[in-house]
Amino acid sequence: MTSTFTPTRSETITVANQGIERLKPYQPGKPISELERELGIHDIVKLASNENPLGCSDKVKQAVIDQVAEIGRYPDGGGFILKDQIHKQFGFEHDQITLGNGSNDLLEIIARTFVSEQDSVIYSQHAFAVYALLTQAIHAQAIEVPAKDFAHDLEAMAAAIQDNTKLIFIANPNNPTGTWFEEAEFVQFMQRVPAHVVVVLDEAYVEYFPENFNSLKFLAQYPNLIVSRTLSKCYGLAALRVGFALASVQITNYLNRIRQPFNVNHLAMVAAVAALQDQDFIEKSRQVNKAGMAQLQQGIEQLGSSYVPSRANFLLINIDADPAQTFNALLKQGVIVRPVGIDKHIRVSIGTEAENAKFLTALATVLGDKE
Amino acid sequence: MTSTFTPTRSETITVANQGIERLKPYQPGKPISELERELGIHDIVKLASNENPLGCSDKVKQAVIDQVAEIGRYPDGGGFILKDQIHKQFGFEHDQITLGNGSNDLLEIIARTFVSEQDSVIYSQHAFAVYALLTQAIHAQAIEVPAKDFAHDLEAMAAAIQDNTKLIFIANPNNPTGTWFEEAEFVQFMQRVPAHVVVVLDEAYVEYFPENFNSLKFLAQYPNLIVSRTLSKCYGLAALRVGFALASVQITNYLNRIRQPFNVNHLAMVAAVAALQDQDFIEKSRQVNKAGMAQLQQGIEQLGSSYVPSRANFLLINIDADPAQTFNALLKQGVIVRPVGIDKHIRVSIGTEAENAKFLTALATVLGDKE
Repeated sequence: MTSTFTPTRSETITVANQGIERLKPYQPGKPISELERELGIHDIVKLASNENPLGCSDKVKQAVIDQVAEIGRYPDGGGFILKDQIHKQFGFEHDQITLGNGSNDLLEIIARTFVSEQDSVIYSQHAFAVYALLTQAIHAQAIEVPAKDFAHDLEAMAAAIQDNTKLIFIANPNNPTGTWFEEAEFVQFMQRVPAHVVVVLDEAYVEYFPENFNSLKFLAQYPNLIVSRTLSKCYGLAALRVGFALASVQITNYLNRIRQPFNVNHLAMVAAVAALQDQDFIEKSRQVNKAGMAQLQQGIEQLGSSYVPSRANFLLINIDADPAQTFNALLKQGVIVRPVGIDKHIRVSIGTEAENAKFLTALATVLGDKE
Repeated sequence: MTSTFTPTRSETITVANQGIERLKPYQPGKPISELERELGIHDIVKLASNENPLGCSDKVKQAVIDQVAEIGRYPDGGGFILKDQIHKQFGFEHDQITLGNGSNDLLEIIARTFVSEQDSVIYSQHAFAVYALLTQAIHAQAIEVPAKDFAHDLEAMAAAIQDNTKLIFIANPNNPTGTWFEEAEFVQFMQRVPAHVVVVLDEAYVEYFPENFNSLKFLAQYPNLIVSRTLSKCYGLAALRVGFALASVQITNYLNRIRQPFNVNHLAMVAAVAALQDQDFIEKSRQVNKAGMAQLQQGIEQLGSSYVPSRANFLLINIDADPAQTFNALLKQGVIVRPVGIDKHIRVSIGTEAENAKFLTALATVLGDKE
């Protein structure tokens, strides 16, 4: 038989699962090179994704270069070398560690493991957009608890727990606000959460401020607690997608049942080991961030604007103007920031001294033009 | 308040979703270096994962090295450069391409997009293990259709379609058997599949044999068809996890709603572009595979054993012995192969001439010892 038949087919094909029908497809941003061509400008400064302005450690680059001969081989699906490094550094055993293709992957694995359509998920207003998207994809009930001064209201979040609640996302510090909570508030919250409700403590930005309390000591106490970390931020591995979750053996066992066996690739794994070992780079990153934050805070105040106090590597700025318009105006000045769905606010990542200065000049121009 | 309270907590915590409770957690294999230490042997040959024995193209290695300065930046979530290369090479537009963290990621995205608990999924006996695992994780009904001479029985698979069937996985060539089907059989099959049922044609190994029919021309005709490809096999990027799916705009739009925005990492993306561009490497890989297959077939016949004819880079060998015992015996001889759940058979990847020779010697020893 040949393929010369005449197809008589309906154009209506299968529909997607319920939660997915209503999801918006991801709109990819244009690469910077494309934007530069379109706008006819050069040297665009990107302060939109909370990346480390120092890039990554030179030791990471060397570790990657040293392993290019291994590209033809599958990664170690068990992640032995990376789990070993995490064990040495944080003291947890391999069976309490779940590796993720960035912490986004971990958050998704966790939601898919514990939440189904009839369940509810709690998260805060002004939190990481992925919490809401994951909940919607599963077609579960979303309980968004109003923020208090841009921060998590942990008391209200505990009070929001329903019989069908299976998962609560909290972040410390929180993205996109930079707000944080203290150990005592966290403990009070955890004591109110029933043992059958899983709490994800998302610590993507925790390395920037040593003042943040040590959450890891609570893992022994709360078998329903998961702490997620990423190497995309302070460790500077955003391009490579590595995160890890620490939790009880029981939870870790569940998560690894649906984790894709090779979710973290080999170069990412060797890079992560090198990154974790280079704590001098982390210390330097903290210093650059501290200086940059002071520079930005001072500059913003001089412009008569205000910001939300932050323990992360970004600031949420009250521009008293439309975020989308301000975003576009700043783009024309050669600076990419992020409107984050909060009225009159934009989020700007802390860059190098020169990047911060360029942003402040651009912001002055844009806010000046407005008046 | 301090953290000195006495916890009075139940040890029984949340249970996972239904499909996940019954899934077996992934058992990570030991890294080769560990195995060598344990067994006290050196130079273990790994013919277990159908990797390209040539590794990857030198142009790929250089492309990765050239990009290590970008490790601190997020990947382009839209995958512009890679989609552009796929467009140039295969003629599809960006909105018909979905990128995956290996094709495993794509298969998972597809299953999660179209299948829910009340639906059924069809796949063949002796097919890629991931089809069954994904179905189980969703807690959907699995319809496994008996194979015919180790190959897909496409007629029986079409006949197995139920009212609740949403997805059918077929593979050409098939892993772990190496079997294939011809264009006419495929067309007959597609004509019998209702338009609301999605068909995934998994072509992970398609590059090895130019004799394989061109499935891509059928995408215009069948809006319910998805063709998935990987760069882990012939292209030699197993470590980096890159796959892509080609489908209608409608299906592609759905898939990208739940695709993690940065599922393919930046170094993987630049490596994939370089790999697709180096077709000389693909040609060389085909030649090495052809020679290696002839070498293995001849050697197996000389041992009085038989194999399933294959159009991939591996052979399913009838060893007339217990697969697990044979696996262990071969391991002690320094060769890792794969028992694939088929009685009396093992799967061996085609390696370099030296690796194939070492395997044949080891197999002769092991089968000789048995008698």
